[in-house]
Amino acid sequence: MSRVVVDVMLKPEILDPQGQAVANALPRLGISDVSSVRIGRRIEIEFAGEPDLDRAREIADKLLANPVIEDFSIRLDDTVAEGA
Amino acid sequence: MSRVVVDVMLKPEILDPQGQAVANALPRLGISDVSSVRIGRRIEIEFAGEPDLDRAREIADKLLANPVIEDFSIRLDDTVAEGA
Repeated sequence: MSRVVVDVMLKPEILDPQGQAVANALPRLGISDVSSVRIGRRIEIEFAGEPDLDRAREIADKLLANPVIEDFSIRLDDTVAEGA
Repeated sequence: MSRVVVDVMLKPEILDPQGQAVANALPRLGISDVSSVRIGRRIEIEFAGEPDLDRAREIADKLLANPVIEDFSIRLDDTVAEGA
């Protein structure tokens, strides 16, 4: 079993109200040295056999990310040690 | 400027209908070697000065993750090269 991780984040020029809400709540926790918070998605794709980055890219492009407002990056997760 | 990344994922025993929906759509793309898809959140926290992992942990614990159904992990993102 092998895992590919897709990180989907809003493009930098797109406003992120959800992250902004978290950033605005931080002073109430006494935290003042955070300059920004951005919230995106992390998708873990488990392949039955060998991991296939091209397949993962196709999945991200067609099903996971909206290319108008989001960027994505793909990487192999080599921290998976369980199973075969 | 320094960035800490918080990954929030549903605990393994919690059903993930969103990921399941993506997994169910894959055969239509001709992809059959994916065994599971799990969808979580990736949060990027930018610190104005030095990154503070303890602070990030506090933020994740109080604002970002629901400890009843979610696990989170925290790491320094050393890929940030832009700016000072």
